Parts: sequence; structure tokens; C-alpha cells
Amino acid sequence: MDDRIRSSFAKQSMMQTLGAEIESVAPGEVVITAPILPGSRQQHDVAHAALSFAIGDTAAGYAALTMMPEDCEVMTAEMKINLLAPGAGKVLRATGKVIKPGRRLVIVTAEVHAVTGEKEKLVALLQGTMVPVSA
Amino acid sequence: MDDRIRSSFAKQSMMQTLGAEIESVAPGEVVITAPILPGSRQQHDVAHAALSFAIGDTAAGYAALTMMPEDCEVMTAEMKINLLAPGAGKVLRATGKVIKPGRRLVIVTAEVHAVTGEKEKLVALLQGTMVPVSA
Amino acid sequence: MDDRIRSSFAKQSMMQTLGAEIESVAPGEVVITAPILPGSRQQHDVAHAALSFAIGDTAAGYAALTMMPEDCEVMTAEMKINLLAPGAGKVLRATGKVIKPGRRLVIVTAEVHAVTGEKEKLVALLQGTMVPVSA
Amino acid sequence: MDDRIRSSFAKQSMMQTLGAEIESVAPGEVVITAPILPGSRQQHDVAHAALSFAIGDTAAGYAALTMMPEDCEVMTAEMKINLLAPGAGKVLRATGKVIKPGRRLVIVTAEVHAVTGEKEKLVALLQGTMVPVSA
Repeated sequence: MDDRIRSSFAKQSMMQTLGAEIESVAPGEVVITAPILPGSRQQHDVAHAALSFAIGDTAAGYAALTMMPEDCEVMTAEMKINLLAPGAGKVLRATGKVIKPGRRLVIVTAEVHAVTGEKEKLVALLQGTMVPVSA
Repeated sequence: MDDRIRSSFAKQSMMQTLGAEIESVAPGEVVITAPILPGSRQQHDVAHAALSFAIGDTAAGYAALTMMPEDCEVMTAEMKINLLAPGAGKVLRATGKVIKPGRRLVIVTAEVHAVTGEKEKLVALLQGTMVPVSA
Repeated sequence: MDDRIRSSFAKQSMMQTLGAEIESVAPGEVVITAPILPGSRQQHDVAHAALSFAIGDTAAGYAALTMMPEDCEVMTAEMKINLLAPGAGKVLRATGKVIKPGRRLVIVTAEVHAVTGEKEKLVALLQGTMVPVSA
Repeated sequence: MDDRIRSSFAKQSMMQTLGAEIESVAPGEVVITAPILPGSRQQHDVAHAALSFAIGDTAAGYAALTMMPEDCEVMTAEMKINLLAPGAGKVLRATGKVIKPGRRLVIVTAEVHAVTGEKEKLVALLQGTMVPVSA
């Protein structure tokens, strides 16, 4: 499962553009981190909302994939993000979780924290729906 | 207004990373386009959902800004995206619109189309809330 | 189609509790109205958000049903509502529309207006996903 | 605080129509229950989605109110609900929680469980934004 997810992740060029990496893969939970690169910012020099979205959505999607049969892939049907605080810091870390698995729809959430040294702050909360598709 | 928005946009390094450009600015409506760059894709080589989110959210935000006093800026409080079709094609184009202006909250939507030559297809629909903040 | 939807609607006791009625059924668009009954209010005596949600969600669901085969029913997978103004007036009217039909997921929106005489005001905007299920 | 919330709740006629009651009030967390009344159902005789929305939204709103100054009330700006399972059982119970308090926006979630005897099942998950307003 770990291999399958890392191999799929490696094919997502957007993840490389953003410098994102998989930190951990467990059944129903995937963690992805990304540095707040000079090229990932908004006009006040903190992380663009799209960076939180990108890694939150991807972490949630792969969390869903851990609960699916081997011949499936996953697509985001919809995702809602609440932005709680500016994405200031060195790194963003997204923790995606499965709330309810299912054959047709998988309900997921993700929390995105801004991390600087030992401090971390919740900056975004996502809730959405993943759809299994045959690979 | 046009200048103010283009100047703010130019400071968003994420927009440059994604190759995004402002196509038009009108009261309550802003259009942003982005090529589907080799580095903006997911594992099936179409646009990553985060590209639709990035330009849809930004177009909606600047649409909100057109309705605000000069000393204000705008932040996304929350945004929901429904993904309707794969982002296949040459270019994505996001049209952000204000549904309801307000002093405290501005309700916005955005449609994202994939464009190839004269064909265009609706690939994402966004609905969210922008918050004015003093600049 | 009209009969099928009216017959299903008649079985929804919540719609009767709220005094809701189907105003019109057309392919991809269903309109439902409800008086703002004395028992449908929040603490400031205007319509409770749940009334806008109830008729907006139901109008969107039946709009989706108009695009499905006869042996299908429809369930709400998820729905997001932005509340734009207090639900003050005599009647709420929800117009549900299909944005994108599909075999697995149907993307819908609904607008809810408060209507008093000839005046009407947009009070809520919904965007969500309906799922076909076999009857 | 408890009195203030119970007094506001008592003025919401929709809550009485649905038979809803406040089960508990604590800082940042409010629990509301409602029987699945004969008049609160959809066409398959389980709870209408609007019942989950009504008590989930209200529990989340009062959870937000516990974190506000005494002269404030709260309004829902937006709310998203994912429906995870049919609302079958005797009673629905909504647990509303504050994720992030704030002077301008309060981010909240709610979980809705269907409860029958000792069994309970998560049937809906809500995530939204409450706005303080002066009373």
C-alpha cells in the first residue's frame, strides 16, 4: 500500500512543483508536508491558500486510497476548506483521514498545520468526498 | 481598480509558479487563466485539482475586492469546490463573481472551464466567503 | 416525471410539517415554496436556516431526479449552504438546478429567495452533490 | 451561559416543531437531541437531511456562542454537511464544537449520530462558520 501510494504521488508533478513529500502512510491516514517555498506564496508572503488546499486534498485522497481495493484509484468529488489562520512558518503539514469508507463514496477530512520548529498552528480544515475509480 | 488588482496579483508568487494571468477585471467579476503546465498535473497528466482551486479562489477573491473600499484587502474565509470533469486541455479559465457584497462578508462563486481551441468545458464550480481586511 | 416527483414529495412528512409545496417541475429544474410558518422560525422570528436548507436541498434533489432513469431515486451526498440575508417575509422559494448530470454523481445548486408580495430577496445559495440509488 | 443559551433556544420555534432539546452546554461544546418524529422524515421513513442539518447547525451555533461576550448573538454564515448514512433510529444527537474562536468568525463542526438504545451511528458531519452579531 505504501509503495502504491508513493508511486502514484511521484507521478503528480504538482506535488513536485510545490516541494511536497509524503511523511507517513497508515490505514485511513496519510500525512503530507510541503515547505512554504518562495514560489508558493500570496501577496503578504505567507502560504497561498492553494498550498493548504493542494496538500490537504492530496493527503485526504491518499488516506481514502488506503481503504480501497488494489485495482482502484481515487478522485476528489468535492472539498471544502475553512482557512483559520495565515499560513506563516517554514512548513505546512497536512493530515488526511478517512471518516467513512464506502464502495461509492469515501468521506474524508484533513487538518493543515503550519510548523516552525516545535510550534505548530492549525491553519486549515478540509472536509470532502472521494470517489473510487477503476485504475 | 484594475491597477490595484494587477499590482496585488503580481505579488502572489504562487500565481507566477502556476503561470496564471489576469484576463479581465470588471466590477464584481474577474477572469484568470492558467496554462496546464507540465508541473501542474496529477498522476493522470491532467490538471491537479489544486490548479482549479488556485485560480478559482483567486478570481473570486479579486472579484470581491472590486466591490470594496480602496483601503481594504480580501482574505478567503472558506471555499468549497465541486470537481465536475477532469481538467484536460491547454488552459484553465476561472471566472470569479460576487453574489452578495457586504461590509463583513462577501459571498462569491467561480466557474472553472478547461479550454482547448474553441472548445470549453466546465470542470469545477466554487462557492465561498471572502472577508475584507484593512490593508 | 412530474407525477413521480409529486408522489415522492408527498411521502416526505418533513415537507408537510414545513408546509412546503412543489411549484414547478421541468427537466433539470424544480421549484419548491414554503410559507415561513410560526413553527419554522429562529429566535429573531425570521425563518430558521434549516427551512432554507430543507427546501433548497429538496428542490436540488428533485431537479437531479428529473435527469435520472425511471428506476432511480436520489440521495444527498453533501450540501453546502451560504446564508446571505435573514429569511424575512411571507414565503421562501427554492429553485433547484442541475449543473452536471452523471451516472454516479449529479452536481446541483439551489437559490432560495424570500418573497413578500412582488419583492424578492436572495437569502441562501446551495451547492451540492446528489447520488442516484436504485429504487 | 447555560441560561442564556437555553433561553435563546426556547425562542426558536423550529426547534420545538422538531422536538429538539438541549442535552448539555459546556465551553465550546453543545449537544442537542431530537426524536425522529413521524413529521420529520423523508420518503423512506428515515430522518430528513434537514433534521440533521437543523440540530447540527444549531448545536454548532450555540457552541460558538459559549465563546462570545455576553452582548453577542451568533448567526450561521455558511455550513457544509456530508451525509454518511441514513438517519434511521429513534433519536438524532448533534454535538457541536468550536474549532477556532474569533472576534469576526468562529469555525465550528458538528457530528450527528443516530441513536437507538445503546447503539449509535455517525450519520452526518458538518463544518461551517458562525458570525458574532451584537444582540
